[in-house]
Amino acid sequence: MLTLYHMQESGNCYKLRLAMNQLGEPFDLVDIDIMKGESRTPDFLARINANGRVPVLRLADGRLLPESNAALCYLADGTPLLPDDRFERADTLRWMFFEQYSHEPYIAVARFWRVFAPCGGASKADRFPEWMERGRDALSVMERHLAERPWLAAGRYTVADIALYAYTHVADEGGFDLAPYPAVRAWLARVAAQPGHVPMSWRPS
Amino acid sequence: MLTLYHMQESGNCYKLRLAMNQLGEPFDLVDIDIMKGESRTPDFLARINANGRVPVLRLADGRLLPESNAALCYLADGTPLLPDDRFERADTLRWMFFEQYSHEPYIAVARFWRVFAPCGGASKADRFPEWMERGRDALSVMERHLAERPWLAAGRYTVADIALYAYTHVADEGGFDLAPYPAVRAWLARVAAQPGHVPMSWRPS
Repeated sequence: MLTLYHMQESGNCYKLRLAMNQLGEPFDLVDIDIMKGESRTPDFLARINANGRVPVLRLADGRLLPESNAALCYLADGTPLLPDDRFERADTLRWMFFEQYSHEPYIAVARFWRVFAPCGGASKADRFPEWMERGRDALSVMERHLAERPWLAAGRYTVADIALYAYTHVADEGGFDLAPYPAVRAWLARVAAQPGHVPMSWRPS
Repeated sequence: MLTLYHMQESGNCYKLRLAMNQLGEPFDLVDIDIMKGESRTPDFLARINANGRVPVLRLADGRLLPESNAALCYLADGTPLLPDDRFERADTLRWMFFEQYSHEPYIAVARFWRVFAPCGGASKADRFPEWMERGRDALSVMERHLAERPWLAAGRYTVADIALYAYTHVADEGGFDLAPYPAVRAWLARVAAQPGHVPMSWRPS
């Protein structure tokens, strides 16, 4: 059985809960409260992830996979969620690297500080203008791409869509207005209509 | 023939020149000077990469792959540089996502502002302490991992090593002292001793 070290409110962790449900993969959860420092204890750093982050996927044999998008690729390998074709697979990865470099550091980080940090992230007030500008840049790149095609890569729903859905669908919590991005909003609705889709609050029973 | 839109001094672009040389893959170069805004012209944004970045790999049939690590995976697919085994492949990706999220935004960005920006990045002086702290965190994660094994993933030289070599080997240009990281320095020497290794300044003749 797979085990996921996760935090319920983390979009990066949500990617893996969603994918495992859609793939029919049973899993256990270990809750890690990053606000209480539980991903940075000496034990967690020594045994689970030296980089001090969740999610981490633990395989049945004990091997560990940090990095949400790497774990997504592991889960989806050999399924329709990760293309076999050489170019399509790389193009799927292209959007997953875009997500981690050009999207998450602004859209997820703004949400984190607004929703989870004390005083709505007042201590980071000087950083919000850059986060908002770069987050809107990322949404614009997605808008332009999705205005011409239904899915990010390979002409079908893949782990690239799961990766970018995770924080885009709660971008409003970071202060982003999705009204100027109609193609992104239509794509969010398509993702949410996929078989086996579950919301961020879902946990296996 | 492959074509690489690149900037010579960019570590992200170097990854692909190095991999293509090691794979015996001939390629053309198109120089893009990001300091002159050449990756953000209307034409570049419309035809090459809406995200306004290099590298972008163009295939012989015209298809385009932005994101250095996605293009690395395309190039290495089916070769020993990218493992076939499901876990080893995901573990290779794990280090490539680590590179783009936890390493490049600090170690490469500090180098960019110190070396390429006017006045050594004086306008970003308030950001350097965070970049240095987080960059050292990333080097510590690598140190701990490489103290116990010669390569980052799969027990052999892979695209994960290429991805992390690119900016680690010039970390000193960003102000990072590698003296406290002996395992990282030994790994840098192992990477540089691989067949077909070329320095960042190399271009195909």
